[in-house]
Amino acid sequence: MVAEELNVNYTEIDHASITDVPGFKASGVAAGIKADQKKDLALIYSDQALTAAGVFTKNIVKGDSLIYTQALVHAATKVHALLINSGNANACIGEVGMEDAIRMAKRVADELGISADAVLLGSTGVIGQRLPIEKIESGIQAAVEQLSDTREAGHEAMRAIMTTDLVPKEFGIRVEIRETDAQSFTVAGMAKGSGMIHPNMATMISVITTDAPLTHGVLQAALQKVTEQTFNRTSVDGDMSVCDMVILLSSAQNSTIDSMEDPLALAFVEALNRVCTNLARSVARDGEGANHLVNVIIKGAANAEDAYKAALAIARSPLVKTAIFGADANWGRIITAAGYSGAQFNPRSVDVWIGDVICCENGAALEFDEEKAKIEMQKDEVCLTVDLKAGTYSDHYWTCDFSHDYVTINGSYRS
Amino acid sequence: MVAEELNVNYTEIDHASITDVPGFKASGVAAGIKADQKKDLALIYSDQALTAAGVFTKNIVKGDSLIYTQALVHAATKVHALLINSGNANACIGEVGMEDAIRMAKRVADELGISADAVLLGSTGVIGQRLPIEKIESGIQAAVEQLSDTREAGHEAMRAIMTTDLVPKEFGIRVEIRETDAQSFTVAGMAKGSGMIHPNMATMISVITTDAPLTHGVLQAALQKVTEQTFNRTSVDGDMSVCDMVILLSSAQNSTIDSMEDPLALAFVEALNRVCTNLARSVARDGEGANHLVNVIIKGAANAEDAYKAALAIARSPLVKTAIFGADANWGRIITAAGYSGAQFNPRSVDVWIGDVICCENGAALEFDEEKAKIEMQKDEVCLTVDLKAGTYSDHYWTCDFSHDYVTINGSYRS
Repeated sequence: MVAEELNVNYTEIDHASITDVPGFKASGVAAGIKADQKKDLALIYSDQALTAAGVFTKNIVKGDSLIYTQALVHAATKVHALLINSGNANACIGEVGMEDAIRMAKRVADELGISADAVLLGSTGVIGQRLPIEKIESGIQAAVEQLSDTREAGHEAMRAIMTTDLVPKEFGIRVEIRETDAQSFTVAGMAKGSGMIHPNMATMISVITTDAPLTHGVLQAALQKVTEQTFNRTSVDGDMSVCDMVILLSSAQNSTIDSMEDPLALAFVEALNRVCTNLARSVARDGEGANHLVNVIIKGAANAEDAYKAALAIARSPLVKTAIFGADANWGRIITAAGYSGAQFNPRSVDVWIGDVICCENGAALEFDEEKAKIEMQKDEVCLTVDLKAGTYSDHYWTCDFSHDYVTINGSYRS
Repeated sequence: MVAEELNVNYTEIDHASITDVPGFKASGVAAGIKADQKKDLALIYSDQALTAAGVFTKNIVKGDSLIYTQALVHAATKVHALLINSGNANACIGEVGMEDAIRMAKRVADELGISADAVLLGSTGVIGQRLPIEKIESGIQAAVEQLSDTREAGHEAMRAIMTTDLVPKEFGIRVEIRETDAQSFTVAGMAKGSGMIHPNMATMISVITTDAPLTHGVLQAALQKVTEQTFNRTSVDGDMSVCDMVILLSSAQNSTIDSMEDPLALAFVEALNRVCTNLARSVARDGEGANHLVNVIIKGAANAEDAYKAALAIARSPLVKTAIFGADANWGRIITAAGYSGAQFNPRSVDVWIGDVICCENGAALEFDEEKAKIEMQKDEVCLTVDLKAGTYSDHYWTCDFSHDYVTINGSYRS
């Protein structure tokens, strides 16, 4: 908001990829981790030292590649590369998991002529199976050979981190601060979903690149602030993965901006918020088996926590989500979820909308046009709004419907 | 345990119904609330004054029939009748909901020649539609006419409270305290599920009858104690209904036993626990679309709360439940759910079993026989055990698998 007053121009980049940011190269190769020759190994690299911020799963069970990366990000060391494999998570296989993490980082470092502690790692897929480490080592060699700063190279990296995702999720914004051309910068991101998605962690794997000249501290603060309102407001199934992370990499050199109040930092937060909002909504929209993006909006809560609790309960309710799958305007399930959420409100005061159709006023059923409500529920984005009339706080949550396909996908994920 | 030492004999009654307890009559009729001529109105009645205990949903949104009943139970008034309708819940329709509740109670009272505050009410079905009150009033007349103390009359009442349940859920135990024949008694119960089932409320509608001579205070304490370990350890979908209740009715006159430590009270708690365990497991087994009863067992927790949290998180995880549907031994999802449950443990110490097959030891994958694990997951009752190795506390949770049929049933519940 403040940033707008500073005469900042935000321009969405068509078909952006993470290599739209100057200084970044990427590649995506098929190392043979996935059975079907699909890409499964992504590498992001910069000749220049990168400043890295990160948000990580809060699950106390953590993957080994994630533990390794988290330690480096917390130490605020400069990095040059990020290697992510999909198809098989490096998690729950005992001490060999950390050995494999170090081995992958070393191999990337050797191929690129950098030190191993300049290599971050990500890993996603089935838990409890050891990575095919020799295949990955060959894959690393190929990934290094194919590094490129073209936009297509960024798209290749996106494809290589997908698991059950149906569509790639990429978004970029060019930020121009009109008073001073030198302070223009770009923010671009990619994300993979699409099951085991739930907040209070960083949700899934997302990589965001920028060349904004912000210190590690400001990058980290901005990422935490924005993640809370975007990725941490996204739920596909209520399950929190052990390998989830959002990594923010800046290629800017001589980063001097060390305050969140600096105009450039404010413009950066705004741009980062737009990128993460787009990616988070895309993750929900492409949830396993999903046909709709569901936007749950709570108004009138007594406090921020109540607004959050009510939004969360509705967004994770299987009954609400199956009703949307069936386009059944069963608003009773929405008020029921709000009622058990832990939020305090007067049940005789609540209003419930499905899209523009008000179904319940002051806790009581209204006569409403079932056909109109059905049309609202068949939209690509379904909006559910609950006004608790207990105060002035609001919150939101993105989720998706719960379909036969979700069950099919997850009934045979390993097979 | 203590009760066993007192030479108590517990005998399961074959094909029991709630009218197996002396003093109770019941009936079940089709009042026309459901479209398809199915039974939808159950009446339970006793000539003698009944002592009533109850456990009710903790959802802050509550149905009007439930609010009415809760007030009477809390006041510890003697009652004579319990009327339950299915097909349409008396909830979220504004002030007319309470008017309808009182109108139903009065009609029952008039037909039976008792006072309206001796009539308890239950209601289950779609929320937010007014009950067809004239049809129900005619139905009440028929239900009173058909009251009978035969076992079949109890079965009719069971059928009349079913919604998406596929099978009736009834269980009864005859308790004989060998030293004194005068202290023999019976406990019998019935329960309906089968969606919107989740604990921290009384879960679904269940009615339990007995003739044990316990005071209101002991009946209430016994019901709360047993419910906590049975109905409140049952989850189908994590959703908590606004109409859930367990009502315990005793037909004993001159009830003098007013201590939970009395041998008869101990024997009663044991019998009640067996009845509620049977009914709760049946509710999970007959969860909407379910093919399996899933028994989640946590061992070695650092404290009771951690044991509960871990069991709950696993039992409500859609990923665990779909894996069981697909008989996919994806134990990584089990350890993942434990990890985000909030329970504290060392991720490098956890063991995970699927039935008798240990899949993960000290947090690391083991080579295990996939075929054997698959067979365990195809059993009618699937047992998942997690040893956190953090202490000596244990807990359990009953749930079911998550199937295509759950989605189908709940995608078109109102239609």
